[in-house]
Amino acid sequence: MTVLGIDFGGTKVALATAPATESSTVDGGSALRDTVRLPTLAAAGAAQLVERALAAARTLTGRPTAVGVSTFGVVSQGRIRLAPNVPGWDGLELPRLLREEFGQAPVVVHNDVNAAATAELRWGALRGVDLGVYLNLGTGIGGALIVGGRVLTGAHGAAGEIGYLLGPDPTRCFATGHAPLEELASGGALTARSARLLRRDVTASQLFDLADDPDIAALLDPAVDALAAAVANLCIAVDPQRVVIGGGMMAAARHLLPRIAALAARAVPFPPEIRAARFVHDAPLRGALALALDAAVTG
Amino acid sequence: MTVLGIDFGGTKVALATAPATESSTVDGGSALRDTVRLPTLAAAGAAQLVERALAAARTLTGRPTAVGVSTFGVVSQGRIRLAPNVPGWDGLELPRLLREEFGQAPVVVHNDVNAAATAELRWGALRGVDLGVYLNLGTGIGGALIVGGRVLTGAHGAAGEIGYLLGPDPTRCFATGHAPLEELASGGALTARSARLLRRDVTASQLFDLADDPDIAALLDPAVDALAAAVANLCIAVDPQRVVIGGGMMAAARHLLPRIAALAARAVPFPPEIRAARFVHDAPLRGALALALDAAVTG
Repeated sequence: MTVLGIDFGGTKVALATAPATESSTVDGGSALRDTVRLPTLAAAGAAQLVERALAAARTLTGRPTAVGVSTFGVVSQGRIRLAPNVPGWDGLELPRLLREEFGQAPVVVHNDVNAAATAELRWGALRGVDLGVYLNLGTGIGGALIVGGRVLTGAHGAAGEIGYLLGPDPTRCFATGHAPLEELASGGALTARSARLLRRDVTASQLFDLADDPDIAALLDPAVDALAAAVANLCIAVDPQRVVIGGGMMAAARHLLPRIAALAARAVPFPPEIRAARFVHDAPLRGALALALDAAVTG
Repeated sequence: MTVLGIDFGGTKVALATAPATESSTVDGGSALRDTVRLPTLAAAGAAQLVERALAAARTLTGRPTAVGVSTFGVVSQGRIRLAPNVPGWDGLELPRLLREEFGQAPVVVHNDVNAAATAELRWGALRGVDLGVYLNLGTGIGGALIVGGRVLTGAHGAAGEIGYLLGPDPTRCFATGHAPLEELASGGALTARSARLLRRDVTASQLFDLADDPDIAALLDPAVDALAAAVANLCIAVDPQRVVIGGGMMAAARHLLPRIAALAARAVPFPPEIRAARFVHDAPLRGALALALDAAVTG
């Protein structure tokens, strides 16, 4: 009795299996076992990506009891949306394709941030939280809302897509091809802008160690201010008990969390706890396994 | 078998009764019957307000089956919070006081915007909506989130308190005594600023008919832009199927709704429907009756 998790990421696909038991070894304290990682080969398109992932799945397990899948983009009415980076992924009927492969086994497909939030709910920093917010500060920026102890998917699968939050200029928005908060404050945006400035590559989290340089500070400060304001405004709107923040930028958590928490403490009438996520790497893959374990129980 | 609704408002208290049946005559098509209105006399404090409301309740009904109450502020852990305008109201254990009066009858206390959203859910523009947003644009600005067909109260009773949403200057925030969106864009703020400008009183909705005056336009435009951005950002975060907007400023709905809807259509990946509320006046009182009817059914 094995469950299968698949995480379709922008640069790699990761697969893992776990025993289909509640006290599964995928608890965050353990390393994931039986794991396969493949390059996404984004430019080569959707079909090869699905095919290679399914071939890898067959090497891991014969007939999984349930399958949990994490993907970039959002899942709306059985199709992937908001996923322009892999040709053919936007609009793909990924849930149907996977059901054809796995027959009777339940298949649950969520976007990567919702999956990561599911891992935090099951094993991590959101455990026991009824009303919460999960934020992923990585190459991109995404979020998830937890209501009633479950991830809220939204009316169109797009709840928590806070990378699109508007900045001061409302003409820079989804319709004009922008994701304003993501373009200002994501790890991807910060590393791209710092590479032009420094003429070398540093990660977004390394940038914070260079913030004595006024040019770097001028890059980081508006980004952190915008993130802090976005978190505070989300908390004002939702009134969560806890906010959990994960993603690669959390390597600079000691710079980021205090500034985010300080604004929330002032701007939110009832400030929530603000905590680092338990899982930095592999959170979506662990979330895919959590989705599969949930599905294995409920059928 | 009669239920009682009480709406504690900043300038008046309204009470009404209704038969404790599902198809109650309080449906929005009907005028409310057996209604009493009293002045709040805010400066005279909380005790007299509760006493006069309870005395009025006794003239309306002997032993109500259930009592629904709407109040300004928020209800957190059995006390009213965020209600500075009536001395003694902030911190008041209103639910306990009402339970002492009404004995065995269930008593449900929500804030006025949540109550209005409950009325819209039961009889109005939110009927049948699973995931939605309700906004009240009146003297103040408030909101409610609808999740799973019910009003989400929040971890501390403060979900939807969007009057506190931050503007460009994060030092103007809750901790410094500000409610930034409300101070920029509420009916109360707009009428106060226009009174200084015009040297006469006009309502916020009448202001929109004077918008040929560049000074008035300069007052209204940033307010409407901020409201539209707040609605769009809420929709990006929550991904609702429908947004319903009520409150006194909706007398200018023909000016407001198109601008709010236009930005949402561009900025939100999956734009929701945006509709006017069914109830403009008496929405919190009708909501109090809806809360009472719900409580009469569930116990």
